Amino acid sequence: MTTTADLFVELVAILKKNALLASCGSALSWDEQTYMPPGGAETRAEQLALIAGMVHERATQPRVGELLSELEARVDIDERPDRSVVVREARRIYSRQTKLPQKLVEELSRTTTLAQQAWVAARKASDFTQFESWLEKILVLKREEAAAIGYGQGVPYDALLDDYEPGANAAAITATFAALRDELVPLVTAISASKKKPDTSVLERRYPMNAQQAFATQAARSIGFDFDRGRLDTTAHPFCTGLGPGDCRLTTRYNEQHFPGAFFGVMHEAGHGIYEQGLDAMGFGTALGETVSLGIHESQSRLWENLVGRSRAFWQHFFPAAQATFPEALTGVGLDEFHFAINSVRPSFIRVEADEVTYNLHIMLRFEIEQALIAGDLSTRDIPGVWNETFEKYFGLTPPNDAQGCLQDIHWSAGLIGYFPTYALGNMYAAQFFEAADRQLGGLFQQFALGEFQPLKHWLNQQIHSRGKRLRAHELVQTVTGESLSAKPLLRHLHARFGGLYGLSVES
Amino acid sequence: MTTTADLFVELVAILKKNALLASCGSALSWDEQTYMPPGGAETRAEQLALIAGMVHERATQPRVGELLSELEARVDIDERPDRSVVVREARRIYSRQTKLPQKLVEELSRTTTLAQQAWVAARKASDFTQFESWLEKILVLKREEAAAIGYGQGVPYDALLDDYEPGANAAAITATFAALRDELVPLVTAISASKKKPDTSVLERRYPMNAQQAFATQAARSIGFDFDRGRLDTTAHPFCTGLGPGDCRLTTRYNEQHFPGAFFGVMHEAGHGIYEQGLDAMGFGTALGETVSLGIHESQSRLWENLVGRSRAFWQHFFPAAQATFPEALTGVGLDEFHFAINSVRPSFIRVEADEVTYNLHIMLRFEIEQALIAGDLSTRDIPGVWNETFEKYFGLTPPNDAQGCLQDIHWSAGLIGYFPTYALGNMYAAQFFEAADRQLGGLFQQFALGEFQPLKHWLNQQIHSRGKRLRAHELVQTVTGESLSAKPLLRHLHARFGGLYGLSVES
Repeated sequence: MTTTADLFVELVAILKKNALLASCGSALSWDEQTYMPPGGAETRAEQLALIAGMVHERATQPRVGELLSELEARVDIDERPDRSVVVREARRIYSRQTKLPQKLVEELSRTTTLAQQAWVAARKASDFTQFESWLEKILVLKREEAAAIGYGQGVPYDALLDDYEPGANAAAITATFAALRDELVPLVTAISASKKKPDTSVLERRYPMNAQQAFATQAARSIGFDFDRGRLDTTAHPFCTGLGPGDCRLTTRYNEQHFPGAFFGVMHEAGHGIYEQGLDAMGFGTALGETVSLGIHESQSRLWENLVGRSRAFWQHFFPAAQATFPEALTGVGLDEFHFAINSVRPSFIRVEADEVTYNLHIMLRFEIEQALIAGDLSTRDIPGVWNETFEKYFGLTPPNDAQGCLQDIHWSAGLIGYFPTYALGNMYAAQFFEAADRQLGGLFQQFALGEFQPLKHWLNQQIHSRGKRLRAHELVQTVTGESLSAKPLLRHLHARFGGLYGLSVES
Repeated sequence: MTTTADLFVELVAILKKNALLASCGSALSWDEQTYMPPGGAETRAEQLALIAGMVHERATQPRVGELLSELEARVDIDERPDRSVVVREARRIYSRQTKLPQKLVEELSRTTTLAQQAWVAARKASDFTQFESWLEKILVLKREEAAAIGYGQGVPYDALLDDYEPGANAAAITATFAALRDELVPLVTAISASKKKPDTSVLERRYPMNAQQAFATQAARSIGFDFDRGRLDTTAHPFCTGLGPGDCRLTTRYNEQHFPGAFFGVMHEAGHGIYEQGLDAMGFGTALGETVSLGIHESQSRLWENLVGRSRAFWQHFFPAAQATFPEALTGVGLDEFHFAINSVRPSFIRVEADEVTYNLHIMLRFEIEQALIAGDLSTRDIPGVWNETFEKYFGLTPPNDAQGCLQDIHWSAGLIGYFPTYALGNMYAAQFFEAADRQLGGLFQQFALGEFQPLKHWLNQQIHSRGKRLRAHELVQTVTGESLSAKPLLRHLHARFGGLYGLSVES
């Protein structure tokens, strides 16, 4: 009889080979967005489709199903907990991929390709009605997808959410978001009412591109991104992508009249990159070497971007270097003035430009609407109205048009429903991890002021990155912080940082 | 019954899909040599091995053999000549790949990997004896390869040569090389004896890297390399690689104290690139959209690098721009002084640094030795002695050591036996094509002096590039120039250019 070990080795070999093939596609995608000449677009699309097709075919081959069933039936599989993890997560992927009828997959691919074009046009015309019928089609298909995947005792939305945040469910997120919103809305109101305002014009002086690049690279290196195993390049839309163990690529974009865009963009992507670089290379291709979820991934980027990168302590260390690098912009500017400017809070219409405080309200708005859409409680026709009403309630502002309202994001047109909440989950995880790290390591801000980021990076490596997917997001938070997910750490952080900057009284 | 068209369509679909997969490997190789961080090396090797293995597996699948046999048996295949070409060339590749026993392929791969390491160490120590046993092993395997491939009425060396120059044979090349050598050796002697010498120090002044890059890019664009379908980057070893239709990547390296290296390197690679860009995109993956041979490929690079790029007419057009771009180096330098400097001829030990005249003698030396090695007429032990004797005979110089002699090239350690002659074939094809173009288009040099390169580029597109692999190299030369391959056009060109520059009498 074949031993459990033999079966496991065969499964892992298939998984690893497929991950290696998929990583070739990642490299091609990176090239497409960085250096590929325009003439290469057509062939590149064919190359990527070929690799994606081969990866799908291999991932869903019947032998994988056989191996999983055999392994799941073995009583000795639990003797090695890591094997159980690999089998559990491989089953999760295999189930998702084999449960979806091929016809639905193709229909979704075709529809979202066309819907994205329609969305671009609709956004340009700022006319939601041009996009409405496409969204309606997508919702029908996503409901079919949810039904095919299944959602136990939950709601259809959970099945979609699970693709991005395995194990999460709408009910739990709703409760956490409610707790967050109850304190966020008054905080935003209090900040808006404050007489203290930062002078953000210091961030809009001349910041030469090469200097920005060198300075951001130095900061990314200081916090622990390893440039022997990664790079930083320039693209229209910033991203981070792992091309397999030892090779993680970050990108950003530069605006010579706006400092924060590229700098905090690099801090954000470097946070993602430090996570990728912290994965166990031996586990590549299996759950042991994979990231937990989009929410946990986002927690790593937001932690370095916001908790660390926008802290006063961080700039106690970096501001003298910034002044030396950008003398034209920063000579005569004080540390506190600069620090207040990079922490300016102002309700605004566009999510991707939002500050640390208002950002989460943008997410909640989308989360509420997409849940209602999937449940059938909201008709697509009513989206602009509901969007604007809710926006007014949260921000005290009404979007002037659809382009600055319900048409601003690409997600729905791309079929990414259930994706938005992971952004706000990431912010909450980040604050909760940061509090735990500060407790365990003691005085993080004092370390930052001295330019010491290694202890925090090492802690994240040990507590989060090296664990791979052994724990689901909620289990990881519980294990690492001793508590289940809560909005409180994020609220404590926001009150502490912005209460101080804006001179708010304690009760706000 | 399945129609010929059905069979043909099935074959082409397999070929195209496999070419697309192979092109993914080309993109990964390009990245490896341009932007990949050092930490990515291990994964990249695995990615490339995976793709190479899949390409080989698909190329040798039994269905390809069945389709080829079926198509070859069809009497109506000849009604469409292009179909015959595709089938003929697909058979050639399929035969080569299926004739080699898997064990031999693996043994060659393993041996050459280790042999290249041994060669690096031996060259460093300048000690051929350290490399000798490795070369001996490689020769045994390459003889096995030749026997497995077969070589009709010819010699085993022909089977190896055929991999790089389909349809060529050692006997014909030997005769052509002899005719070339008979005039080259006295020409080199006469040049060495000439009292006229160029002042090459003008090429060793300060040429800032960014200026070199901009200038070389401008020249490459002027001769017809399309930067909307290609790029130029920097690598340790310059190369040109096509990543599929619409995307061709060139690389070069810069030395701020040496102008010709990067500039003529870019002209050379752009010549390769113009060939790649001139292929029929619809024929991608089949013989209709593939280059003819290494020799024909090299003819395109050498034509633009030497026949065009080192001509006086080319610099009549470009020298004013060069002076404006490199004022520190070229102010006060005359066109003729500069032109003589870039055409300096001097016998030297290292092939890759050789000038246009002596280069071919370097090739002949290697061609003679590797033929004798494969035939068993020369023992590896005797290589350094034979190398140095022949070198003395051709160049009037004796290499001071093995590093500057028989250990200088990577080719033999990599198993590339039969590759060297294609370099000199390229030089001869280039001169022969250039003469024909000049005859047909009239006054090419007058056009160059006016900056007009489009007529020549267009002629090459039509006469050579767009034909794909419809004709073998010797057929192509006959068709395009009206004559079979001959050393005479190259000799006429060399006598004309260097006789003038060095003030030689007509009889030399």
